[in-house]
Amino acid sequence: MTRSPQPRDLIRPDILADTAYQVPDAAGLIKLDAMENPHGLPEALRGQWAECLARQSVNRYPDARARELKQQLRTCFAIGPGYDILLGNGSDEIIQSLVLALARPQARLLAFEPSFVMYARSARLCGMEYIGVPLRDDFSIPLDQALQVIAERRPALVFVAQPNNPTGNLCAGETLTAIAAATPGLLVVDEAYHAFSGADSLALLDSHENLLVMRTLSKLGLAGLRIGFLVGRREWIAELEKVRMPYNIGTLPQAGAVFLLQHREQLHEQAARIRQDRERLRQGLAQFAQIQQWPSAANFILFRVRGLAGPAVHAGLLTRGILVKSLDGVHPLLQDCLRVTVGTTAENAAFLAALAQVLAG
Amino acid sequence: MTRSPQPRDLIRPDILADTAYQVPDAAGLIKLDAMENPHGLPEALRGQWAECLARQSVNRYPDARARELKQQLRTCFAIGPGYDILLGNGSDEIIQSLVLALARPQARLLAFEPSFVMYARSARLCGMEYIGVPLRDDFSIPLDQALQVIAERRPALVFVAQPNNPTGNLCAGETLTAIAAATPGLLVVDEAYHAFSGADSLALLDSHENLLVMRTLSKLGLAGLRIGFLVGRREWIAELEKVRMPYNIGTLPQAGAVFLLQHREQLHEQAARIRQDRERLRQGLAQFAQIQQWPSAANFILFRVRGLAGPAVHAGLLTRGILVKSLDGVHPLLQDCLRVTVGTTAENAAFLAALAQVLAG
Repeated sequence: MTRSPQPRDLIRPDILADTAYQVPDAAGLIKLDAMENPHGLPEALRGQWAECLARQSVNRYPDARARELKQQLRTCFAIGPGYDILLGNGSDEIIQSLVLALARPQARLLAFEPSFVMYARSARLCGMEYIGVPLRDDFSIPLDQALQVIAERRPALVFVAQPNNPTGNLCAGETLTAIAAATPGLLVVDEAYHAFSGADSLALLDSHENLLVMRTLSKLGLAGLRIGFLVGRREWIAELEKVRMPYNIGTLPQAGAVFLLQHREQLHEQAARIRQDRERLRQGLAQFAQIQQWPSAANFILFRVRGLAGPAVHAGLLTRGILVKSLDGVHPLLQDCLRVTVGTTAENAAFLAALAQVLAG
Repeated sequence: MTRSPQPRDLIRPDILADTAYQVPDAAGLIKLDAMENPHGLPEALRGQWAECLARQSVNRYPDARARELKQQLRTCFAIGPGYDILLGNGSDEIIQSLVLALARPQARLLAFEPSFVMYARSARLCGMEYIGVPLRDDFSIPLDQALQVIAERRPALVFVAQPNNPTGNLCAGETLTAIAAATPGLLVVDEAYHAFSGADSLALLDSHENLLVMRTLSKLGLAGLRIGFLVGRREWIAELEKVRMPYNIGTLPQAGAVFLLQHREQLHEQAARIRQDRERLRQGLAQFAQIQQWPSAANFILFRVRGLAGPAVHAGLLTRGILVKSLDGVHPLLQDCLRVTVGTTAENAAFLAALAQVLAG
């Protein structure tokens, strides 16, 4: 009998050195850390919702092609017949599928920093070289520098988050089209926060063959369903379909998403309410002279407290029952920064009151 | 502006050459192709089931640690406190996580052939060299040869499906332990068909540190929920957790699986009924002199018709409204073979009647 293998004998060294993604326990807290829609299912829908879910035959495999859900997404988001849809278990899975499909030897993924962490994480996990281009101090994309890096390194895959997470800013339409035109690879515009931004890159699909638009139902109020989707030309989606696991979207998420998209006016009302509450939250933060905040086209606001360490502010809020996200240490531009998700009117007020206490020391 | 890239410029050549996994349309057919439990949710449970699902807050992200579901799995399957559980979106995702975690340069995955197609598919997709060891003509594992290949090629990962799919046979316990003792990597015993087999390798975990047991709720009657799980020593699961996408199991599948596992006596009754119907189906097939069938410890039976091409039998059944799986062309040992899933008593009778017609020409 050979000696039993240990993790260090078998597991990839980069994974051994890594730590698992940590999700904090939010039990009993006002949860403003994860860009969730704070408004639950409207009570008027709950009965029909229960009936719709209970009707599903969970003993059968889900529809591998998710035909009804895709049809519903086409209608809701006005996706033209010339384009196809790839579904993922959240955007996370779509990012991984893109990387797996494009990971030829020496293929590179380019993203801007700071941005959504999964771009770099997937590149490293699935064998693409990662190139991080730093954003300017105001979190805008340095276009000239980006075009130069693209010309030199010729990435197979570029991500632009529109608006960016965790900073909340939009990039100009001309910046997107310039990057699309310059890149020899695919440009994925990540519109996870579409419901709050007013930005819509679907119209760019017609003029830019290498552009794809990624969205998710998570921020719209369906984070628990794990539905991400990617829209693009048929020839790209057909290749990505070969990487997708055939039954990746379960029966209940498919049926649940179809139902809620059929009642999307309710989700849109909630999104409108969140946009209003974002403005109130911005005004509330502006009352504090010590607070620096950044404009946001998403359902969160990035801020820091002058003269206080970000982790101390985070801890101060936590002891007062408020969970936000501390970004200190994630990137030099985010030193001492925190990100607060727009909650309900009452949750935002509770957050501002707790923050006032923290600032008062 | 550069020329727009085409798939052949960017997509991995092996993926370009591949085709997407095809799932046949089963609308209007008696569906005996996919090892589904044919018995739906017991009517007595439907009201509570609806209530349980409707109670979930789908606007929030799911519990990233799936604590309640794991606790329920521990109870149901008597998983000791010394072991941890990795959850996947079906076994498919667990296989992919294993491959990603172990894909060091030159790392190899060994499996037997014919067996579950996802082992080889994941190896190729995620960068491990694949070694396929042919089964004997009776589909048993050629142990001496297997041990020799293991000694020579030193695989980082070995899969044994127990019972095997699509052949239905069990491998002897001593074969499993001999492979576990000989392999310098991990041995994953895939017990997807546990509910029908009587085989249980969990007891081997204590004596074999490099062994992990993979199961799924799919064949137990919850295929639509997409819940696979892997049980093993904490140090292995901790590394695999780093590869898992944090919110891979949605809110509704988590809650739905917990609910149905709380009522597992119903699922066990259904499994017992399927085992009985498997015996009746075996006897039914034995009535036809032209039919060769193999013993099965799963919820399907592998068979062929002497003197008739497998695809012709498949087509003949299809025109009579019965969908089974044709395995002809998948592996030389499976020439002309078909796999029929055990359905309800009535579905099995309809299948046997249709088969009689096909045989009568």
